[in-house]
Amino acid sequence: MKINRYVDISTLEREAKKDYIDRHSPFIHCGNSAKEGEKFTVKVKLGDEYVHPDDFDHYIAYVQLWNRETMLAQATFTPGTLGNKPGHVEVDFNIVPTKDLKLTATAYCTKHGLWHSNEKEVAVS
Amino acid sequence: MKINRYVDISTLEREAKKDYIDRHSPFIHCGNSAKEGEKFTVKVKLGDEYVHPDDFDHYIAYVQLWNRETMLAQATFTPGTLGNKPGHVEVDFNIVPTKDLKLTATAYCTKHGLWHSNEKEVAVS
Amino acid sequence: MKINRYVDISTLEREAKKDYIDRHSPFIHCGNSAKEGEKFTVKVKLGDEYVHPDDFDHYIAYVQLWNRETMLAQATFTPGTLGNKPGHVEVDFNIVPTKDLKLTATAYCTKHGLWHSNEKEVAVS
Amino acid sequence: MKINRYVDISTLEREAKKDYIDRHSPFIHCGNSAKEGEKFTVKVKLGDEYVHPDDFDHYIAYVQLWNRETMLAQATFTPGTLGNKPGHVEVDFNIVPTKDLKLTATAYCTKHGLWHSNEKEVAVS
Repeated sequence: MKINRYVDISTLEREAKKDYIDRHSPFIHCGNSAKEGEKFTVKVKLGDEYVHPDDFDHYIAYVQLWNRETMLAQATFTPGTLGNKPGHVEVDFNIVPTKDLKLTATAYCTKHGLWHSNEKEVAVS
Repeated sequence: MKINRYVDISTLEREAKKDYIDRHSPFIHCGNSAKEGEKFTVKVKLGDEYVHPDDFDHYIAYVQLWNRETMLAQATFTPGTLGNKPGHVEVDFNIVPTKDLKLTATAYCTKHGLWHSNEKEVAVS
Repeated sequence: MKINRYVDISTLEREAKKDYIDRHSPFIHCGNSAKEGEKFTVKVKLGDEYVHPDDFDHYIAYVQLWNRETMLAQATFTPGTLGNKPGHVEVDFNIVPTKDLKLTATAYCTKHGLWHSNEKEVAVS
Repeated sequence: MKINRYVDISTLEREAKKDYIDRHSPFIHCGNSAKEGEKFTVKVKLGDEYVHPDDFDHYIAYVQLWNRETMLAQATFTPGTLGNKPGHVEVDFNIVPTKDLKLTATAYCTKHGLWHSNEKEVAVS
């Protein structure tokens, strides 16, 4: 099975390809540093500039947040969570880090498979 | 199988029972009204006054958000998401409502089973 | 939120109601006894006489197997696992029991909510 | 994040490495051909010659079955499903194929991350 990885869409020429890659890519939104043992919020949001459908036969079924080889949390959706309109799937996980993080988010589209974000480093002290 | 339901702990006398019920109960934090077709954030947080362990043999494995009979989203955790220290499991779901909501949150503790929150009504217009 | 429970359909008169209840109910198929510490197969199958749709907007999203208050396993599906034709969702879990079991299966239909099976006792020795 | 892939352990020399790779790898057990529109059972079993722990801090949390880019089903476990003894996590999914399959199984160990099986082709007619 193929795993799709984010590509900087400013390097792409075709509008359709920018849209396809951007709307399927999970983006990690969080600070660059965190306090050890304290709550730290990590937003995972699909798409930066482009929205994804929330149709019954085409939706984002789940999003996972990983730290290195460890899965921290998963959010699972069923079709309709976004009201069956195109939008950005978005979930805020609250984790308590104990050491430096290397976060990756993944997302699964029922039509276009599995997508991995870029890695995001967070210094924990 | 038994389903545990939230009881107002101010009606209870025994401290141990207050702690037991409060730390296992999912609480829904969100506004009382929402705009149709717009993003609406619903926080589900376990425990109000008391914290739950995040031990390998005793942790909150998942939290679900329901609207009436429909499951909107689930967050799944593996032991350690909270750094193996007692705390409040907490996740923010972002949904797009199309009509009035009657939300219930459920939570599953690997030692003490399934817990249901009170119902929370949200007017959507 | 409402939890639907299995009712013996032979006690019902209306054909539509028999169909509705039967096709949504998870049934547990396994022996009445098991050996301690050995693999034991538990089949969870939806519907006994009637089949459930596997449409994009109407499908069985997950099945759970519980022992008393403990969730042993969950099988999650996305629409299409049954080829988008009416059928019986069916999964065989293999567990290793250490003492007597009181099993319950639950199933979630994206249109008609959560269903609980009857309890099944298994003697473990 | 790293994705671990199965390596034929007969090509390896170190016993510890054979054990490490084998016990984490999901293996797909099913026929080489299936009938279109009929139930087809696919067993996913972890480990061929070596068993994996089922400890609270070290267990197999989930197994997924994929057909090309599509996730067909997932089985989720909590620690203890195998009675907290080393064993083979094992689940039988029943799917209804509509065309040729290229199956991959994945498994997630809470200590050693994500593992992908070899691809298994199934002719459907």
